[in-house]
Amino acid sequence: MKIAKLLIEGAERYAVIKDGRYYLAEGDCFALGKIDEKAIDSPFKILPPVNPSKIVALGANYRKHAAELSLKINAEPCIFLKPPTSIIADGEDIVLPPSATKVDYEAELTIIIKKDCKNVPKDKAKSVILGYTCANDVSERVFQKLDGQWARAKGFDTFCPLGPCIETELDGDNANLMTVRNGEVVQKGNTADMINGVAAIVSFVSSVMTLKKGDIILTGTPENIGQIRAGDTVEIVIEGIGRLVNKVIQG
Amino acid sequence: MKIAKLLIEGAERYAVIKDGRYYLAEGDCFALGKIDEKAIDSPFKILPPVNPSKIVALGANYRKHAAELSLKINAEPCIFLKPPTSIIADGEDIVLPPSATKVDYEAELTIIIKKDCKNVPKDKAKSVILGYTCANDVSERVFQKLDGQWARAKGFDTFCPLGPCIETELDGDNANLMTVRNGEVVQKGNTADMINGVAAIVSFVSSVMTLKKGDIILTGTPENIGQIRAGDTVEIVIEGIGRLVNKVIQG
Repeated sequence: MKIAKLLIEGAERYAVIKDGRYYLAEGDCFALGKIDEKAIDSPFKILPPVNPSKIVALGANYRKHAAELSLKINAEPCIFLKPPTSIIADGEDIVLPPSATKVDYEAELTIIIKKDCKNVPKDKAKSVILGYTCANDVSERVFQKLDGQWARAKGFDTFCPLGPCIETELDGDNANLMTVRNGEVVQKGNTADMINGVAAIVSFVSSVMTLKKGDIILTGTPENIGQIRAGDTVEIVIEGIGRLVNKVIQG
Repeated sequence: MKIAKLLIEGAERYAVIKDGRYYLAEGDCFALGKIDEKAIDSPFKILPPVNPSKIVALGANYRKHAAELSLKINAEPCIFLKPPTSIIADGEDIVLPPSATKVDYEAELTIIIKKDCKNVPKDKAKSVILGYTCANDVSERVFQKLDGQWARAKGFDTFCPLGPCIETELDGDNANLMTVRNGEVVQKGNTADMINGVAAIVSFVSSVMTLKKGDIILTGTPENIGQIRAGDTVEIVIEGIGRLVNKVIQG
């Protein structure tokens, strides 16, 4: 099932998507209530599908991407955090900070956590996952290298486009993902190439920190990252979820 | 003025502290209302003074500490993030994770942000600061080195003791801070030795990411970090604020 969060007639509402049409639902994505029988015919804006209390992300979770950035691969996942203020919705603009030199896209399958959890065993990981969405782990490469820590490089406002919807029935370990820049496919991969699969990721992260309902985990990007510039349109496309489309503007 | 957040008779309330006594106030720390004339005489529990949407922290903000960990010092601050799930209150236990090898204390002056802000100039920094509190930036050294990124090493549950109260009138750029372990002073410093002072920190961080009301910034630790072990009691003491006391237990 596909679920989107909308701003419609001044209110935030969840809707179920069927055949490209949106049907308003009672409740929220964690506990959907009654779903309208009639599709929406008023204008609406797509919102980020959740408001996470934290954004955990994996570095170097695809071998060829680790190689292209000379990132080391450890036996255990390397995690970092992005601030919630970096999130924007499908359709909103990625703003290049005046201080930035080289800003890249990174297509990432994103896990959405269904309930508060800690120390989740791998074989129980599915029970804490609500579904998946697309994220663009926008990254400034000069600061990433200079700082060592990635909080600045990956933490600017607008550097975490998220959406457009949640798919609850995807196989997270076998999903085609790609980046399309100005209509051209520039990055392609499949999550089957992740070094740490979905269950291992959820188990590992929850062994470190309590995951809260609505928290998200970005699972890393495949090879062929590349730059985005003011005026570009960048799309993160994950088969079975949808297209996350954002324009790039100069801040 | 000293303000603490309490759990009293099942409710979360703010109180003003005068001469060691607590006076309940209406409103919250950002907008205190009427303050009781009579001090509290019921039992209460101290809570973390705020619930930040994000915890920003500075690495290598004191020269001698940077030297003891061989951290490089750049012209601009190095920032990282801790997850909100790492916060515990004064009096709660720091839990050493089973996977940890060497866990250290780090005494840090902590800035509490008063209102949502972005791109704050240095000379306006004071206008967005509510006050200061104490934090212990608890850190696991093996993971810190191994991962490169510090989210795991500094992101375990209970790794951000915070409190015991907010002091709104402190000079953040001239505050004595120390760590006391099992009654012995093991770390001593003064925030005047920070490489980046309070105004520079707020200006820099807010140039990267929007700071939200209640967000906190840990300003780095001076030299003489050291290990904590199960059974220890560790206190972060900042003159003019108070003592943040936590026991250490094995998880």
